[in-house]
Parts: sequence; structure tokens; C-alpha cells
Amino acid sequence: MSPQLTRDDLRGKSIVMAVYTDVSPEELDVFLQDYDIGPLLSLKGIAEGVENSNFLLHTQTGYRLLTLYEKRVDEADLPFFLGLMEHLAARGLNCPQPVKNRRGEALGRLAGRAAAIVTFLEGMWPRRQTADQCAQVGAALARMHLASADFPLRRRNALAMPAWRGLFDAARARADTVQPGLCAYVSGELDYLEKHWPAGLPQGVIHADLFPDNVFFLGAQLSGLIDFYFACDDALAYDLAICLNAWCFEPDASFNFTKGAAMIEGYDRTRALTRVEKEALPLLARGAAMRFLLTRLVDWLNVPPGALVRPKDPLEYFRKLRFHSHAQSLRDYGAQL
Amino acid sequence: MSPQLTRDDLRGKSIVMAVYTDVSPEELDVFLQDYDIGPLLSLKGIAEGVENSNFLLHTQTGYRLLTLYEKRVDEADLPFFLGLMEHLAARGLNCPQPVKNRRGEALGRLAGRAAAIVTFLEGMWPRRQTADQCAQVGAALARMHLASADFPLRRRNALAMPAWRGLFDAARARADTVQPGLCAYVSGELDYLEKHWPAGLPQGVIHADLFPDNVFFLGAQLSGLIDFYFACDDALAYDLAICLNAWCFEPDASFNFTKGAAMIEGYDRTRALTRVEKEALPLLARGAAMRFLLTRLVDWLNVPPGALVRPKDPLEYFRKLRFHSHAQSLRDYGAQL
Repeated sequence: MSPQLTRDDLRGKSIVMAVYTDVSPEELDVFLQDYDIGPLLSLKGIAEGVENSNFLLHTQTGYRLLTLYEKRVDEADLPFFLGLMEHLAARGLNCPQPVKNRRGEALGRLAGRAAAIVTFLEGMWPRRQTADQCAQVGAALARMHLASADFPLRRRNALAMPAWRGLFDAARARADTVQPGLCAYVSGELDYLEKHWPAGLPQGVIHADLFPDNVFFLGAQLSGLIDFYFACDDALAYDLAICLNAWCFEPDASFNFTKGAAMIEGYDRTRALTRVEKEALPLLARGAAMRFLLTRLVDWLNVPPGALVRPKDPLEYFRKLRFHSHAQSLRDYGAQL
Repeated sequence: MSPQLTRDDLRGKSIVMAVYTDVSPEELDVFLQDYDIGPLLSLKGIAEGVENSNFLLHTQTGYRLLTLYEKRVDEADLPFFLGLMEHLAARGLNCPQPVKNRRGEALGRLAGRAAAIVTFLEGMWPRRQTADQCAQVGAALARMHLASADFPLRRRNALAMPAWRGLFDAARARADTVQPGLCAYVSGELDYLEKHWPAGLPQGVIHADLFPDNVFFLGAQLSGLIDFYFACDDALAYDLAICLNAWCFEPDASFNFTKGAAMIEGYDRTRALTRVEKEALPLLARGAAMRFLLTRLVDWLNVPPGALVRPKDPLEYFRKLRFHSHAQSLRDYGAQL
């Protein structure tokens, strides 16, 4: 019988939604002939992001992840993303590792889309984050930064500071419909950030989206990082600033100093923050909050009629931005460095 | 960034959508302590029906399927469904087999819902069905009927012939908005079916929903049957009639006699159809088409505002119904019995 899901059904429960391109056994068989991983046993669409179609692929040699890249991903970026995962995995970081076909290529085509097979990572992402998890995330982020130091490919951060003005312009006319006074507040913050944005920080490849659902734990131990599809070149400490925003606030928007200290110190023990990075961190965190506030605001104001997924609340990041705007030093994040 | 899927996104590609109740690692750990299948390694929501939340559960002892039963399933029916799968699996039918907890129970509770773990079945469902697959489906259906003969539980078919009048009443006022003349046609067919519906046929447990997406193949071989959540008591040959409708028509609505013959003869070789069943099959197929026409019609006419999934086309079954209404005997389905 035809299921009819409505937005009311979705509201009623905590849900994850996933949309997949359908793949027939015949075209999958043809695709797999290029690989040395044995015959097909099963393929199940899984809920891991809605940007791409992700499947758990079972062949006679085990379970792997199959991704079909949908139109939201620029195919020209795929060699960077897949190359980065391979580079990091080769240096011992636990992340999905591209499986190459018989021609040595990580990228193929399936169902009219670019497609890649990567190794399957065990673990669950933490719904309620602890200070100990924050410490492990800080350390894992630092390990990723160290491991990517000699990665040869480059990718510009399309959502770096210079892009924020354009995002704000797309949202400013209707920003006050979300909250009165938001337009003036963001405008002032943006002026400040553009004027004081730190330069000369150590650069490298950053994950740029290391939110809790991209970090897996097995029991108490961090077991791996996933979803490198925002990775790009930027200041390494900016990546830590994104994580402080994503991991260290409580649901009531208060900053948890224990988690903040754990994450910063966990990072610093693995890759020592330079003096200039430590000084810049409050401003970087303020900028990171601005970046997510702006993209969420644009999404919020541009929900198409009939949208299936309610965009994330931009005001969560307005509250985080306000916190950072009062921070002066690492001590305001609980850290004693 | 917040993904905004719209119905336009969905229309653009062949998609499968799935919605899941979110399960935290903490509550899953507690749930799994009741089972003897080792510690949790991962849980992925998978696209297998949207009636329930289905997950691929990986623990140290392997991969299994975890189902959370959502409100569309009556919990009182779960012992029937799970008991049937266990009964069939014990008799060698390849279907999901409930995994019992330490108290010997197949049913538990997780995330506020009834929950069960079943074994994971390999295979892919065929997107384009062949006559050989139809023959195997007929044989598998007959094996299921034989294997369930001594299953002790009963479940009434809530969508059997006596229920059709009520479905039609719910749809008749607006039926002609779907296709002019549909109301009168269905009304006439319904009168005929109510008057001539066969009695005295061999009864038993039927699958009642053995569409292609519920039958798995590994290469050319049928590897198993899934989704017993419509199973109920009814005439065994009515199950075959449902399969003729679901498998043996071409996309242009023409009946494929090769497939029809293969399915009927595949069934008959495994469980010999009685004379009365053979004679009744055209009428049963006509009734099965009516049942799916009516439920699809009700769904079609009751799409809630903001519905995420477009209901299936009821007119597909109008065309099938028209075919069956001209059939006189098994020869009209290609079979030479």
C-alpha cells in the first residue's frame, strides 16, 4: 500500500530521512565487474547524509560503503575528497578509505552518477556528547591536521570569511523576520570580523564540518571520522573553532567550559597550538558561529514550497555568536594553556 | 548545511525514501544487553519500507536487521508476524528469522516502540522481472503455503473481499476525478465480485503482498522472501492471484503470458492446484486487482497537504482489472494445466 508521509508524521518523532537513487542489480553487477571485491550479495540504502546516495554494499569479501554523488557535490572536487581520505587512512587515521577498481581508480560511474566505494567504519555517533568525547575529538582533529600536512591537493574554502558578506546580502532583507534586530546585529558583527579577521595562522587541510554525527565511537572510544565533503584549505585553528561550536554548547545555548577545556587541551596535546593560534581562537570561534548562522539563515529564508526537511534553526548560532563576541581569551573557554 | 529536499528534487530521480526513528547508542546498548549477540559495532537506518523503522545492526557476532514498529502496525499482530517467520524459517524457507533475547522473547521495546531483531537476508529484488523469476516466485509461494500449513496462529485478512465495499464507499464520490467513468466501472465490478466470489477454496496463511521488492535474488536464484506484515488467513490461490498481478504485467499494462504460465506452473509443480482453485483463479486475480485498485484509489484521493510520497497510480490496477474481467480460464493466463 502507498505510504503517505506528511510533515506532521515527521514532526511527531525524532527522525532521520534519506533519499536514494535507485540502483538495479543488473547495473550494479556491471559496475562491480570493475572491482576485485567478489560478487554482489546485497545493497541497502542507508541514512547517512542526504547530500549523496549512500548504500551499504555487501559482497563476498565483506561490507563496504557505496556512494553515488548527487548534483549538490561538484564532481571536480571528488579527486580532492577521495584523495584526502586515502591519504589520511594511509597515515593511520580511521576514516573511510576508497577502494580502487582494477584500473587503480577510486571513482567510477553508476546509475548516471559519479560513484565510489569506501571502507565501512564501525561505531555510532554520540547523541549526547561528554567532555571525554570532546577531548578525544580535539585529539582526533589534531591528528587529522598533522596527517594531512603533506597532502598535495588544494581546495579553496568556499564558505571562508570573504564569502560571508555575500551570504548576508542574500539574507539581510528578511533577517528581521526571523528575529527582530538580527539584521543590525549580524551587520555589526560582520563588520567587526572583516576588520579583525586574523591573518598569518598556520594553514592546512581542515575537515570544516566535524559535527557529532560525523564522529563515531565504539563504546567510550572514538573509532573514526567520516564525511570529508566540506574539507578544504584554511587555518587549522578555525577547524577547532568549528568543533567548539558544534560540540561544547548545551541545549540551552550555554557554553560548557569543561567540554571546551577538554577539547582545546585534547587538541593542544596532540598538535601544540601556536601563541598566535591561541590568541586568535575566540575570534575564530566567533567567525565559525557567523558562518553557520549565515548558511542556516539563508537556508531558513529559502525553504522551497513543499520542502521535506525543516532547515536547522539559525538562532542556535546567533546565541553562540553572542557568546563568542564576549570572549577575550582561551580562559573564557575554560582552557588553561 | 541544512538540506532542503523538495518534491521537485524527488521527482527528478528514481528515488527510495526512508524515515527512521532515531536510536541513541546508550538506549541501544541497554536493549542489546537482553540479547546474546555481542556488543554493538554499528547501526544504520536502511531503506526497506517506510511502514517501520529498519536498521542494519552490526554486533560482534554479525549483521542482523533491527525493526522498530511504528504506529501503522498493530502491536497485537506482532506475535503472528514474528511467529510466522520463525515457523517458516524452521521449515527451511529462506525468510528473516526472529532472534530471541535471553528470556526467549522475539519482541522487545526500544525508543518507545515495539522492536525485534531478525536475521539479515542476502539478495537484491529484481527491477525488471523475467519469466524464470516468475517461475521461481510461484514455486517459493507454494513452498511458503506448504510450510505454513501447521502454523497455529490466525490473523483475519482485513483487506479481503468483504472489506472492498467500505473502501469503495470511501472513494466513490471522487473516483471519477481520477478517471471519468471509474466509479460506475468499479461499482459494476464490485457487484459482480461480491455475487460470484468463490467459496470453499483451500485456506491457509498467505503472504498477501509478495511484490517484486519483497523477493530477493542472488544472481539468477531466488534467495528469500521478506516483509510478512500483510500475512493473514485467506484462500491460498488468492495469494497466487496477487502475484500474477504484481509480477506478470508489462509496463504498458499488457499481460505477459510467458510469465503468467511460468508462475502458475511453478506454483502447481510445488503445490498442485486443485480443480476448484484452477477454475477460480481468473476471478481471484480479478478480485486481487480490485483490492489494490481500491486501496490505491483511497490513498490517491487522500493525499494529505504536504505529503512527501506520491501514492502509487490506482489506474495501473484499473487496467489490470479490465484484463482479468475478460479472462475465462487458466488458458487466458498462458497456463496449460
